[in-house]
Amino acid sequence: MSQHRIAVVGGTGPQGRGLGYRFARGGHDVVLGSRSAERAEEVAAEVRGRLDGLGGAGEVSAATNDEACREADVVLLAVPYDGHDELVASLPLAGRIVVSCVNPLAFDKRGAHGLVIDHGLGSAAESAQRLQPDATLVGAFHHVSAVTLWGEEDFLDGEDVLVVGDSREAKEVVMEIARSVTSRPGVDAGKLRLARQLEPLTAVLISVNRRYKTHSGLRVHGL
Amino acid sequence: MSQHRIAVVGGTGPQGRGLGYRFARGGHDVVLGSRSAERAEEVAAEVRGRLDGLGGAGEVSAATNDEACREADVVLLAVPYDGHDELVASLPLAGRIVVSCVNPLAFDKRGAHGLVIDHGLGSAAESAQRLQPDATLVGAFHHVSAVTLWGEEDFLDGEDVLVVGDSREAKEVVMEIARSVTSRPGVDAGKLRLARQLEPLTAVLISVNRRYKTHSGLRVHGL
Repeated sequence: MSQHRIAVVGGTGPQGRGLGYRFARGGHDVVLGSRSAERAEEVAAEVRGRLDGLGGAGEVSAATNDEACREADVVLLAVPYDGHDELVASLPLAGRIVVSCVNPLAFDKRGAHGLVIDHGLGSAAESAQRLQPDATLVGAFHHVSAVTLWGEEDFLDGEDVLVVGDSREAKEVVMEIARSVTSRPGVDAGKLRLARQLEPLTAVLISVNRRYKTHSGLRVHGL
Repeated sequence: MSQHRIAVVGGTGPQGRGLGYRFARGGHDVVLGSRSAERAEEVAAEVRGRLDGLGGAGEVSAATNDEACREADVVLLAVPYDGHDELVASLPLAGRIVVSCVNPLAFDKRGAHGLVIDHGLGSAAESAQRLQPDATLVGAFHHVSAVTLWGEEDFLDGEDVLVVGDSREAKEVVMEIARSVTSRPGVDAGKLRLARQLEPLTAVLISVNRRYKTHSGLRVHGL
């Protein structure tokens, strides 16, 4: 397995922290990024505590979001959709594989549903690609629960990571990184525009979680 | 288990035929509908042939789409999205539970993707509800493969049927009917508007099928 140096933009949020933990546990070096380097260091220390005594783990460090991206070959965007475009436009992402797990959702009294991006013809991942034409965007890790990621299981091996992107090579890198989460490669789910389908699907899982009091995930049958 | 009399509008297409076969195999009476009653009878005979010798199967008959709906308490819409609204508006659906498995998809050289309905704020199921305000719409069975439905397995028990709707009672009926497909109840996945997420997700499964040469389906982990 190739080791990567992965920056997690939004590394102090529950999804970023959980994925950073899993990536490091799988042997990758992880730089947790945040607006505040101090806050990032607090969470990095917490993650290092969880990894203590586990063989083969990568290093976990902390930085501002900007510095974290500069140090990495792969960048995970794990930020809220609110303010997404401004933040993404400001980051040094050129030449990097940029993985978006951003879920643009809205909530009202009927529950969660997908936000409509670009009149239904867009997604957070596609917005990021447009804002950063020299980065290579991949969509993945939308459906793994922060709670499960931070949990005690060795792997989320009942779940699959669906991976979309227009670069086959970048997808292969991310599919391999997904091994650190599910114990097997992510599933190549097609072109980047299918992020339009993957991102709001999280609203369905949130509904399932509410109804069944669980932290659900997805598995692709038939592979 | 309650037995239902289920009309399949579009019962001669691969999805309608496959679901009709599974419903009848599970003990429900099925009326396969088509524009042509003769064509429906050909397919009904084919389905009866598949059920021959299986204990507990329901009856399978044939009719025009319109007649099929009149005879049924549950109606499955298994029609292409092209022409969907005109057909749905014309059918006698008032007072019935109407299950939509319609997938509004578009195809181009980059593969399948979701059609944008009502600027991203609609779905085939919601359109059907608007056109038939006295019917009770439920979205389900979007992701089961026609090939697998028509196959030899007793049940598609590696897959789940995600069920959305605004009537809890109607959803419960459809979740029970899903037993005939997967051997266990469908999964309550939230309100009808989440059909916006379920319908185009089929484009992702089509991409997976093309990449991995399979007939994929979905399983919800964590229930």
